[in-house]
Amino acid sequence: MRDVASRLADRLPADRLLLDDDSLRAHRHDRSGWEPAGLPSAVVTPRSTAEVQAVLEVANETGTPVVVRGAGTGLSGAATATAGELVLSTAALNAITELSAADQLAVVQPGVVTAELDRAAGEHGLRYAPDPASVEISTIGGNIATNAGGLRCAKYGVTRDSVLGLEVVLADGRVVRTGRRTVKGVTGYDLTGLFVGSEGTLGVVTSATVRLRPAPAETATVAAFFDSVEKAAAAVGRLRVQPAIAELLDADALEAVDAAQNTSFRARGAAFLLVQTDGHGAGAEAELVRADLAPLATGVEVTTDPAVAGELLAARRFALPSLEKQGRVLIEDIAVPRARLAEAVAAIAAITRRHGVTAATLAHAGDGNLHPIFVIDRAAAEIPEAVWAAAGEVFETALRLGGTLTGEHGVGVLKRKWLPGELSPDTLALHHSVKRLFDPRGILNPGKAI
Amino acid sequence: MRDVASRLADRLPADRLLLDDDSLRAHRHDRSGWEPAGLPSAVVTPRSTAEVQAVLEVANETGTPVVVRGAGTGLSGAATATAGELVLSTAALNAITELSAADQLAVVQPGVVTAELDRAAGEHGLRYAPDPASVEISTIGGNIATNAGGLRCAKYGVTRDSVLGLEVVLADGRVVRTGRRTVKGVTGYDLTGLFVGSEGTLGVVTSATVRLRPAPAETATVAAFFDSVEKAAAAVGRLRVQPAIAELLDADALEAVDAAQNTSFRARGAAFLLVQTDGHGAGAEAELVRADLAPLATGVEVTTDPAVAGELLAARRFALPSLEKQGRVLIEDIAVPRARLAEAVAAIAAITRRHGVTAATLAHAGDGNLHPIFVIDRAAAEIPEAVWAAAGEVFETALRLGGTLTGEHGVGVLKRKWLPGELSPDTLALHHSVKRLFDPRGILNPGKAI
Ligand SMILES: Cc1cc2nc3c(=O)[nH]c(=O)nc-3n(C[C@H](O)[C@H](O)[C@H](O)COP(=O)(O)OP(=O)(O)OC[C@H]3O[C@@H](n4cnc5c(N)ncnc54)[C@H](O)[C@@H]3O)c2cc1C
Ligand SMILES: Cc1cc2nc3c(=O)[nH]c(=O)nc-3n(C[C@H](O)[C@H](O)[C@H](O)COP(=O)(O)OP(=O)(O)OC[C@H]3O[C@@H](n4cnc5c(N)ncnc54)[C@H](O)[C@@H]3O)c2cc1C
Repeated sequence: MRDVASRLADRLPADRLLLDDDSLRAHRHDRSGWEPAGLPSAVVTPRSTAEVQAVLEVANETGTPVVVRGAGTGLSGAATATAGELVLSTAALNAITELSAADQLAVVQPGVVTAELDRAAGEHGLRYAPDPASVEISTIGGNIATNAGGLRCAKYGVTRDSVLGLEVVLADGRVVRTGRRTVKGVTGYDLTGLFVGSEGTLGVVTSATVRLRPAPAETATVAAFFDSVEKAAAAVGRLRVQPAIAELLDADALEAVDAAQNTSFRARGAAFLLVQTDGHGAGAEAELVRADLAPLATGVEVTTDPAVAGELLAARRFALPSLEKQGRVLIEDIAVPRARLAEAVAAIAAITRRHGVTAATLAHAGDGNLHPIFVIDRAAAEIPEAVWAAAGEVFETALRLGGTLTGEHGVGVLKRKWLPGELSPDTLALHHSVKRLFDPRGILNPGKAI
Repeated sequence: MRDVASRLADRLPADRLLLDDDSLRAHRHDRSGWEPAGLPSAVVTPRSTAEVQAVLEVANETGTPVVVRGAGTGLSGAATATAGELVLSTAALNAITELSAADQLAVVQPGVVTAELDRAAGEHGLRYAPDPASVEISTIGGNIATNAGGLRCAKYGVTRDSVLGLEVVLADGRVVRTGRRTVKGVTGYDLTGLFVGSEGTLGVVTSATVRLRPAPAETATVAAFFDSVEKAAAAVGRLRVQPAIAELLDADALEAVDAAQNTSFRARGAAFLLVQTDGHGAGAEAELVRADLAPLATGVEVTTDPAVAGELLAARRFALPSLEKQGRVLIEDIAVPRARLAEAVAAIAAITRRHGVTAATLAHAGDGNLHPIFVIDRAAAEIPEAVWAAAGEVFETALRLGGTLTGEHGVGVLKRKWLPGELSPDTLALHHSVKRLFDPRGILNPGKAI
């Protein structure tokens, strides 16, 4: 590493290289709870595409593994770094290069915090649609590399659906540009899509052209309570309109929110379904949502008061931090086809009961995307075997129902073990050959994602 | 080829192999007007994935080029076949394998005609959103391989946005499955997106899992006329709502429609903009559209009468066939960022004037996707040089405005020459290395797309 550090020092201004213990410690974890072995050997903070190229050239020549890091809010261990690895932080690549209201797009560096882009768009009556619950703390680059979902993606799609084009530095330092500034285009293969969700294993995103959309004129919010989470999940399948948001919280999640936020959601039901409609038909759609949910709900209310809606949304946004107050958490992330949501929540409940473990469930219910959150005694040194066993069964359930191991958080290190359950040997082999094509020396985030 | 034919005969039932002259002739063209050299040597019509595998195994072993063919309605020459090539027709792979209203998806073989899937979905109150103007004559497989757009994709996205997963036979006969049955998922790289739009050069799609969406409850249609196409294009940039459809026809297109369909659109203006809004806010949105367009229009009308809307839409759908009655056509297909539409139509007019050629313009204006249609004397043996020169300048204009060579028809053979204008040498090299990875012997649609 001495060699690598001195080569980097030759190519970059001195302040780009961090070698002190505090910096190394601050850049080794993400939010998954995964404990990497040892300390990375250095952190680099390039300030331009050319500097990123320099880093990758040195890394490629020396065979040094590189972990690209956005904000480190990932939940799969994909941004964790171990001994001998170089962390490439995008923290200093944080400019909004262009914001064109006329073309409804922005060009941004990867380190821009997602909510900042959304606020900048808001000044022009536009918005950046993808809104992971981590929108205030995660970066566009991390969102792209994980193909992050969010609340609004029920209607507006995941990150992929808002990325028009990318600038990417490849493992050997070459720069490629994919995609375009138009909403449509079919010149060449869809390399943009290939880089989106690739968890830092195929290239380093140094710039992204993203789509902005008009902010909706109207919004209506429906709060429905149920006496079981299965009923709430079944109710989602009855919706005749496409909601902008459809979020589900079970009794354990509501109790955690109430305890932490001093609210009283649990008293209103054992499950809470929060639906938002938007656009010029928002009011009419909300009435349809009410009618669709009412037969299964114990209570349904529609509001167009932004303050009330804000409180309801806050319950969802604070659910994870509230659960984190109860103990250490392992956040799972499966997705199932639309009609299997109720089966999935019932199966999760049965699995946790059988293994004697605790899990609260949050769901981006409009997408069939479930987050069972296992809550573990904070004193436990490691995630208990029973929790892993239960998580494994949750994954098997997802696959059995025609679903997937990960709806939006990615495979990272946590889920590699289960990949062969979802991908056939030939399909997995094809993934590995794509990886080798883009990164023959295997320096980009080795051991992650596939 | 004797060898290839006899090997295929060993592996497939006899009726799968067509060697007669009529069959060969019927499978060499697409709708681009491209004249391939010679006749393909055979046509195979496999009836199962296993039979497709057998065909590719033989082709790969013998190094025989394979042109996959859907309905041959492509406009880029991508499905044309020359001497020595084997045409793999998907005509007999035309079953809707599954249609799940509950999960809002269908599993289909590639030879299913797009409109048939849409009608099958319609029986459940759902629809298959992508609707190329060729919806009644093109196949899902062809739509996937070109990433076809259409009228409704202004709001509902292109074919990619409706494909959840694929079964693909690779060049060497291996089968891979990509994607999933859920609307979200990030396990592995996005190989689904890579195959979509790959024009038969990376693998043969043998099954697709596609998303169906609820048919909209209401629709409203706005017909606006302008005294110039530039004004109509500028008006599109003023729209505050996301239209479901926004189609533009210029004076030449209107004249062709009037002549062929006995209508009188041209009398109402020199450009016609057809906007449709849908959903529960359709009526309110149509009024906003009217207000946005009115300052630039000579007349705007809103209708919710399906018969009137049908007549307006027919003008758009019949525009191409109407132009084809006037001569041989060369159909172009550029896309530009939203705010550059007016500049693009003005540039196209100037280019055609300068070269003394005739072109009518149709546009999926909501996407900035323009189709200048060059009309050529039917007696001409070849596309005149002046037309190619004008087309070349149109492509340069698209790129200069930050746009792309092809919005939805693909590169095929017609646009290969212009690729280096859009893709840098490193980017193009990466495309070629992806191609080599998937098809090392280069048997899948050689010389097309990249
Ligand atoms: C409270 C909380 C709520 C959350 N809610 C959601 C949610 O609703 N939806 C959701 O999808 N996720 C959610 N997440 C997970 C996380 O925020 C997302 O995965 C996010 O996209 C990660 O962004 P980041 O900038 O923190 O990336 P990091 O964690 O730093 O990195 C994530 C991955 O991206 C790669 N990467 C980062 N930048 C680049 C780049 N420029 N080029 C190439 N690769 C790069 C890294 O190598 C790594 O593989 C949540 C997390 C928390 C803590
Ligand atoms: C009147 C008219 C209107 C049109 N309007 C539109 C429009 O609005 N939008 C639009 O996008 N296009 C339009 N087109 C173009 C054309 O219809 C589309 O490109 C369509 O997707 C082609 O489908 P096809 O089945 O005819 O494919 P083909 O022309 O047979 O093939 C097209 C490409 O797909 C490949 N392919 C076909 N099947 C498979 C498979 N199973 N696996 C792998 N590769 C395969 C072929 O090799 C070829 O590269 C129009 C064409 C006409 C004639």
